[in-house]
Amino acid sequence: MTIRYPNGHAYRAPATKEHPHFSSAYTNYGKRGMSLEEALNESNVYYETQGLAVVHKKPTPIRIVKVDYPKRSAAVIKEAYFSTASTTDYNGVYRGHYLDFDAKETRNKTAFPLKNFHQHQIDHLRACTAQGGICFAIIKFVAHDEIYLYPAQELFTFWDAQVAGGRKSIPYDEIQDHGVLITPQIQPLIPYLKAVDQLLN
Amino acid sequence: MTIRYPNGHAYRAPATKEHPHFSSAYTNYGKRGMSLEEALNESNVYYETQGLAVVHKKPTPIRIVKVDYPKRSAAVIKEAYFSTASTTDYNGVYRGHYLDFDAKETRNKTAFPLKNFHQHQIDHLRACTAQGGICFAIIKFVAHDEIYLYPAQELFTFWDAQVAGGRKSIPYDEIQDHGVLITPQIQPLIPYLKAVDQLLN
Repeated sequence: MTIRYPNGHAYRAPATKEHPHFSSAYTNYGKRGMSLEEALNESNVYYETQGLAVVHKKPTPIRIVKVDYPKRSAAVIKEAYFSTASTTDYNGVYRGHYLDFDAKETRNKTAFPLKNFHQHQIDHLRACTAQGGICFAIIKFVAHDEIYLYPAQELFTFWDAQVAGGRKSIPYDEIQDHGVLITPQIQPLIPYLKAVDQLLN
Repeated sequence: MTIRYPNGHAYRAPATKEHPHFSSAYTNYGKRGMSLEEALNESNVYYETQGLAVVHKKPTPIRIVKVDYPKRSAAVIKEAYFSTASTTDYNGVYRGHYLDFDAKETRNKTAFPLKNFHQHQIDHLRACTAQGGICFAIIKFVAHDEIYLYPAQELFTFWDAQVAGGRKSIPYDEIQDHGVLITPQIQPLIPYLKAVDQLLN
C-alpha cells in the first residue's frame, strides 16, 4: 500500500538500521527501482562511511496524540498526524562547510514548478545562506532522467519574481545553464558533492 | 498524560506553528516550568529571528506501519513506533560553522553518567568533528541548577576510557573545569552561542 501525505505525495518511512531500504512507495530511479530520496540516502551513507561528509535526511515530523503501552512490548503510537517541517529535509557538514538542501522531482519537461517549494523552506534556505551555509536544491527532471544541483541563490531570484507576480516556474534551460548536472554512478549513486565542489570553486 | 519512550524518558511532541509550546511533559526549568529541550528550542527561535544562527531540533524518528485516510480530513497514523535516531538531536549553522550537539539532563550531583549517550551518537559527533564541525553536549546538572557546554573532544576521552573498562561517568568537577558554564538569561533563555564563541576563540 502506498501511504500518501494530504498533498498526495507518497510517504516514505525513514530508513532504520533494521530496515535500511524500507519504503512503501518506489518511483523509478534510473534502472535501479529506487526513489531520488533513497538514492540520496544511500549516497549519504557512502559519503559518511568513506569519511567524506556527514549528511542526513531529517525524520518526517509527526504530531503524536495517543500512545499505548502494552505490557512487555514497545510503546505503540495509536493516533498521530503528519505535520509540516519547518526546515528543509537534508543538512550536514562537508569539509568545514554547512550544507542544507531539499530534493525535488518533477515530471514537467520544460520547467520546474515553484509550487514544489513552500515559503518556509525558502525562508530557511535564505537564513542558512546568510549564516554562510552552502544551500541548494537537488532537482530531478524525470522526463529527461537528469539531476541538477541548483544553487539556492538562483532559486531565490525566481521565487521573489513569482511573489511579485512573475512566472510560477523555473525554465528547464535556466536550470541547465545555472545548475550543475549530476551524473549518477555506481558509488555514490548521486555524487552531488562533486557539484558542491563546483559551487565552492 | 505523560507519553514515554520505551527507555522511560518523557516524549515531547515537536513544536509546530500551531503549537509552538506543545509538550506533554514538563520538568522544571529554573523558575519557568520549562524543560531543557523547550528552553533550547525557544533560544533557537530567538537566535534565528535575530539572524544570529539557524539551529533546529530534529523531529523524533517514527516508524509508520498503518495510516488511515478519512474522507475530507487529514491522514491519521493509526500504528507507529518510536525508532532510534542515528544522529544527535540538534544541528545547524552559526557564522559559517556547522554546529552539532545533544542536550542531556542528570540528577546526579557528583558526575554525569555516560549511559546518557549511545555509541551511535558518539560516532556521529566524531564524524562531524572530523569534518570540521563544532560539536558538543549541553549538560544540565539539575541538582546544581547549572548548564554547561561540554566539548565533544573531552567527551570522547571519557567515552573511550569507559569502553576500555574505565569509569562510567564524567566527574562534575571535570565538567566544571573543561566545560563552559552557561548562565540563563531572559533572551535567549540559554545563551549557548556565547559558550560556542569561547570554544572558537
